[in-house]
Amino acid sequence: MSSADISSLRQNLPAEVDVLTEPEAMAPFLRDSAQVPDSVETEMPAAVIVPRSTEHVSTILAFAHEHEMPVSIWSAGTGLAGGALPYEGGLVIAMHKMNRILGIDADARLAVVEAGVIVEDLDAEARTHGLFYAPDPASSSRATVGGTIATNAGGLRCIAYGTTADHVAALTVVLADGSVIRTGGRTIKNATGLNLTQLFVGSEGTLGVITEATVWLTPVPQGEPETFLASFDDIEDAGRAVVKMVRSSADLEVLELLDATVVRWVEEDNQAGFPLPQAALIIGMAVGENAHRSIDIACECAEQEGAQEVRRQPGDGLMAARKLSLPALQKRAVWVQGDTGVPVPRLPELISRIEQIAAEEKHQVRIVAHVGDGNLHPMIEVVDGDWETAQHVTDRITAAAIELEGVISGEHGIGIYKHHELPMQFDEATMAAQHAVKKALDPKGILSPGRAI
Amino acid sequence: MSSADISSLRQNLPAEVDVLTEPEAMAPFLRDSAQVPDSVETEMPAAVIVPRSTEHVSTILAFAHEHEMPVSIWSAGTGLAGGALPYEGGLVIAMHKMNRILGIDADARLAVVEAGVIVEDLDAEARTHGLFYAPDPASSSRATVGGTIATNAGGLRCIAYGTTADHVAALTVVLADGSVIRTGGRTIKNATGLNLTQLFVGSEGTLGVITEATVWLTPVPQGEPETFLASFDDIEDAGRAVVKMVRSSADLEVLELLDATVVRWVEEDNQAGFPLPQAALIIGMAVGENAHRSIDIACECAEQEGAQEVRRQPGDGLMAARKLSLPALQKRAVWVQGDTGVPVPRLPELISRIEQIAAEEKHQVRIVAHVGDGNLHPMIEVVDGDWETAQHVTDRITAAAIELEGVISGEHGIGIYKHHELPMQFDEATMAAQHAVKKALDPKGILSPGRAI
Repeated sequence: MSSADISSLRQNLPAEVDVLTEPEAMAPFLRDSAQVPDSVETEMPAAVIVPRSTEHVSTILAFAHEHEMPVSIWSAGTGLAGGALPYEGGLVIAMHKMNRILGIDADARLAVVEAGVIVEDLDAEARTHGLFYAPDPASSSRATVGGTIATNAGGLRCIAYGTTADHVAALTVVLADGSVIRTGGRTIKNATGLNLTQLFVGSEGTLGVITEATVWLTPVPQGEPETFLASFDDIEDAGRAVVKMVRSSADLEVLELLDATVVRWVEEDNQAGFPLPQAALIIGMAVGENAHRSIDIACECAEQEGAQEVRRQPGDGLMAARKLSLPALQKRAVWVQGDTGVPVPRLPELISRIEQIAAEEKHQVRIVAHVGDGNLHPMIEVVDGDWETAQHVTDRITAAAIELEGVISGEHGIGIYKHHELPMQFDEATMAAQHAVKKALDPKGILSPGRAI
Repeated sequence: MSSADISSLRQNLPAEVDVLTEPEAMAPFLRDSAQVPDSVETEMPAAVIVPRSTEHVSTILAFAHEHEMPVSIWSAGTGLAGGALPYEGGLVIAMHKMNRILGIDADARLAVVEAGVIVEDLDAEARTHGLFYAPDPASSSRATVGGTIATNAGGLRCIAYGTTADHVAALTVVLADGSVIRTGGRTIKNATGLNLTQLFVGSEGTLGVITEATVWLTPVPQGEPETFLASFDDIEDAGRAVVKMVRSSADLEVLELLDATVVRWVEEDNQAGFPLPQAALIIGMAVGENAHRSIDIACECAEQEGAQEVRRQPGDGLMAARKLSLPALQKRAVWVQGDTGVPVPRLPELISRIEQIAAEEKHQVRIVAHVGDGNLHPMIEVVDGDWETAQHVTDRITAAAIELEGVISGEHGIGIYKHHELPMQFDEATMAAQHAVKKALDPKGILSPGRAI
């Protein structure tokens, strides 16, 4: 792609659209948040373009389509799978300036936003109407609504509210050739046409560029949150307690597990007030009218499964402490951040398998998990820059999760870094069907080629 | 298609697979439950085939693909949109003998079933584990799990539990060429690959044949149901009361509206105990720990919006009475059964528009509605066999719903009968994207051609 060509694109866009071509200006848009080996060099795109409207995105994609340029989509750089990284000589569409909240219909519990709106900003606006935006990934202060839809982001509250997918009603999407489509609707029931909305959710930029989203808001639960913690001498007992809690009538909003070493590191850094367990700590939260009763039930389950210490606490302070675990981990080592998911009843066995793999490989693996929804993040240490061994251990853990009826990615997506694991989960016919759909909507393969599927 | 060809298919299938070619034997599989003009003649397929396994379906589709025969899928004949009707010289795949419940994992809250399992049978089996299957279309005693997934069936409880789509975790699907794919997973979070599961949900047989489904089960709420009714002199007041109830903190499981004439007919036939309102009756139900408080709130909303009589009642007797409305309607006339949906706050205006259209057209339109989720069934009388005028009135109502941010079909699907209305909701580019996806998965267009999309 010559610079002459880019300037012809620039001429088709209004002045308000930044077209960045200097490496220094492009630099902030060339990485995501995954830790990667030093040996990985960023590919250098021909330009980073910052649209302000759906029409601008349409113009950019029509140009890319004509010139068969690979396109990646950058929203906030909070991804962990490499899905937003640039292509050599390609275009990066940076969505952060499409950040207007276009409207909130509180009676219908709907918000319409441009894709670049920050998740927390939408949530704050919704709360002025007595509503909130339920998707709550750890990156919500920086991640965008569009980016989290494109990756079907999860988070801590999915046990109660599901993932981002469950909150998307309608999308405006620009397809690879620049055509603009409007999927979904504003009704609770909709049996009209193919559900393209959910096809784009989690498609990681392979099928189109989401420019606008209509999302469901949720009434703010009444009452103060309550939390509990339970420490265990045996991590598999902790897993069994989780299964029991999920099977019970407790309405928990959050249910997390940290292994003993992670707890100790959090305590060393923050004096968060956690007890130091032999094996693992479970933390849970409930909100709303049934909160007190739900925490009662959860504590009882923990005691029945042999918890050493069970403690309840009003407020959400324990949740803030939980969020200190990733900084504590990253302060001490470099990690491959795993992201497996299994059905909740398979958790004790998955934990046992991870311990076995770590022992066999003589490799440090720490465990942080959204156990309530079965999403487990094994943290695999990268020792002395040996990414290869860490990846080998990661792949063995993924394979174990798949054997236990699990998935490769619970919430981070596939992107680049998990792409080689796809055949563990999908047979050839199922992979072929995904590629057929991709080809139907992007026949030249310009959108995030080689990633996600 | 010559009979010789069909016998070659028969030779590729085991004896347990019925291949019916006599008109009399095929007759039960050639209609659905929609009322249609006498002038509509059933097209005559070459054969109705009754598979017992995914492999049989694969053999049948590979044959149809090779011979480019149109294929329709019959599950229970409870559809209302003509989506399952046969094609002249085509094949009908009748799914009712694939009716095994393959497993229930109560701890994971998952059931695995063949597509032909009756919805109520799955629900009954789930209840032996303290769980239930939330999708509850009016036809649940006959409709199949696969058929209701293929049409994204709704029902009365969607205000609390969403539509069928919200309960589908994974599918086994046979594509047009006979290849078998497995979509989705068994985890709460799944960010792996394209969401083909939700693409097949509601695709009305245009993309593949669903042969097996993994669905989510829900814990049975504790406590007895409670119900209320509220009668109104003004149907738009009733609509406003509904908006208020939905906006409140009441957790309602069902919220229905019947117009005064429908109530009177139900009473004439059944003495169900409904008061006879001037304009409309609202009926609601709540279940679970917050039931009593929720009904309190709903009754208060009704009173605030000017209800004439508000009455609460334990048990679910009112719900049984509600189900008598369709028989009462069908006893008195032939109707085109409309199926619009709008955002709940638009309901009062939609009702007003329907009354205006009925007056302008001097045509009887009755209203039965799942108002809690915005799904309204206008019943348009067919006078003296004049289907054309009834369809004209129906189309005007659909157009009004679309203007109010609604959809053509809330829960019955598009099939044949609403196909001409699609351009009201989708622009050309969005229709083209749907057809591109269809063509990707069914390049010869043999599956339910000309329907749904």
